[in-house]
Amino acid sequence: MIHIPRSVEWHDTHLTILNQQALPHKTEYLELKDIHDVWNAIATLKVRGAPAIGIAAAYGLALAANQYETDDLDELKQRLQKDRDYLASARPTAVNLFWALDRLIQSIADASSVNEAKTTLVHEAIRIQIEDEDTCQQIGEHALSLLKNKKRVMTICNAGSIATARYGTALAPFYIAKEKDMDFHVFALETRPVLQGARLTTWELMQAGIDVTLITDNMAAHTIKTKNIDAIIVGADRIAANGDTANKIGTFGLALLAKAFNIPFYVAAPLSSIDLKTKTGQDIPIEERSAEEITYIAGVSIAPKDVNVYNPAFDVTPNELITAIITEKGIVYGPYEQALPRLFESEH
Amino acid sequence: MIHIPRSVEWHDTHLTILNQQALPHKTEYLELKDIHDVWNAIATLKVRGAPAIGIAAAYGLALAANQYETDDLDELKQRLQKDRDYLASARPTAVNLFWALDRLIQSIADASSVNEAKTTLVHEAIRIQIEDEDTCQQIGEHALSLLKNKKRVMTICNAGSIATARYGTALAPFYIAKEKDMDFHVFALETRPVLQGARLTTWELMQAGIDVTLITDNMAAHTIKTKNIDAIIVGADRIAANGDTANKIGTFGLALLAKAFNIPFYVAAPLSSIDLKTKTGQDIPIEERSAEEITYIAGVSIAPKDVNVYNPAFDVTPNELITAIITEKGIVYGPYEQALPRLFESEH
Repeated sequence: MIHIPRSVEWHDTHLTILNQQALPHKTEYLELKDIHDVWNAIATLKVRGAPAIGIAAAYGLALAANQYETDDLDELKQRLQKDRDYLASARPTAVNLFWALDRLIQSIADASSVNEAKTTLVHEAIRIQIEDEDTCQQIGEHALSLLKNKKRVMTICNAGSIATARYGTALAPFYIAKEKDMDFHVFALETRPVLQGARLTTWELMQAGIDVTLITDNMAAHTIKTKNIDAIIVGADRIAANGDTANKIGTFGLALLAKAFNIPFYVAAPLSSIDLKTKTGQDIPIEERSAEEITYIAGVSIAPKDVNVYNPAFDVTPNELITAIITEKGIVYGPYEQALPRLFESEH
Repeated sequence: MIHIPRSVEWHDTHLTILNQQALPHKTEYLELKDIHDVWNAIATLKVRGAPAIGIAAAYGLALAANQYETDDLDELKQRLQKDRDYLASARPTAVNLFWALDRLIQSIADASSVNEAKTTLVHEAIRIQIEDEDTCQQIGEHALSLLKNKKRVMTICNAGSIATARYGTALAPFYIAKEKDMDFHVFALETRPVLQGARLTTWELMQAGIDVTLITDNMAAHTIKTKNIDAIIVGADRIAANGDTANKIGTFGLALLAKAFNIPFYVAAPLSSIDLKTKTGQDIPIEERSAEEITYIAGVSIAPKDVNVYNPAFDVTPNELITAIITEKGIVYGPYEQALPRLFESEH
């Protein structure tokens, strides 16, 4: 039995999250006892990864509901609407966050009592978590069907188990492979500035006994060439209707390298990351974060005081650079404008 | 008058060096009073950059000669031969170090007295420094002729003033432009793992009032696109006879991005970096450095203990990705097999 770490767990009166800010040196689980704890955990990146954020937020809303002492369903709904907006403000670009929160709000549209609503919210949050684990497992199976003749695969950031309910997206095929006793050699980019690759991807793959090698981001081209990398697989923060994909800064550069070296570039993501209302990547706002995220590492300043810094958190990979998008409903190839909507049609 | 920092200065009884290990937070000049101080400054990377190391070592040897109290020229020469070997051991892979030391030894081959030898050594060391400053200035002028209609230029690592006598190589055009009251906006990659871009390039350009913005290495592709970068310019550790160029890890990836975005990719380097005896990039050995250089930043661990690491210090950019090589003798375009040898012919 291999160990695949989980990031969020529900315990009726609170939830626990794996504190991803303490990794890789400390495996610390935090108890979140109210909605403010949850907001804070999301805003300070203690829980991160689009699905994990959605799951944590869903439990946060269920937790808030449980803590209201009222018998007035309308009052509860009004309060939860405010709580929904509050939690949504913790990571303004995280589409899964809105999606999960709205799904919880929706789930009690027809509730007939406060108690029923409270129970429904908890069940809906649990359902989101279970569905996400299933989703990730299916993504992993599909991804493995593409990667099965490959051995050395590169990835960026952490689209891993701890970013989701379990298994992850881009990392899922490696866990599924390990469960089937197949071996991959994963090359993880450290992923500056926040170092999710160095701190999280290496850690979680090592937990499961998967062969992983850490490199810095600027080593990608040389490593693809000298280590004969067979494929690149990444997650997604948001996929537009035409397949343009917003993901961690550096993804776009990797996609260009994949093209230059003629190796496949795969995006692994659940349907919930596909936003058909966003026409193209140009419509995706790119969050810019603080200069200090770059100029300080672990509290130590590494650049001149007052240096100008540009710190975009994401970039957009144009659809033509994406060999395939791997979802829980199957593998999709371009032109994505036509292929992506069909994924949703088949849901009915 | 703009301030272009110098890394090495001669003061008759000692030399001063800019302590590059204390940058960017402390601008500290160290007095080196004897050959042991010089050895130590080179070995501990307080002075770095191939030309700057050569200059410091040359002054170190001149300093040692001045401090010997003997009238016996043969004795002086014997002692200096030992001192040469001692200084050469401070950075065993630095070709400029051996070159500068041997040039000093050579300079006193025909000396007729101890006093003449002492004076000659100092003059030869000064000459090395002045020649390097001239070289860098000429590189800067040539580079500026290519960049003059460009505004936003990206660079990696520190091929700057403090790595040379003055001006640097890849950074030289920005100083020359500033002296002519022309403005550039430089985007400096931080350059993991040792962060020469974040610590040194930003610092020295800021000293001269040149507009510089720091980004992490994985932001290159997104920045080229969103900030409309016009060109990329880098230094070189070694250029093979066919133009293949070894430089700081990350350079190869940048060259591939330049091609993808159809912007020029320039290598700026003195003739002393061109090694016609090295046929192609495949003949250039790539130094691999310790895992700790990646897994620790400023003494803080950022990755799991015992994680596998791959840490190549350099990569090789194939000649076909290089728009032009800029030397003190002029600008050279491919095919480099034919063009590079002509640079040396024109020296006669």
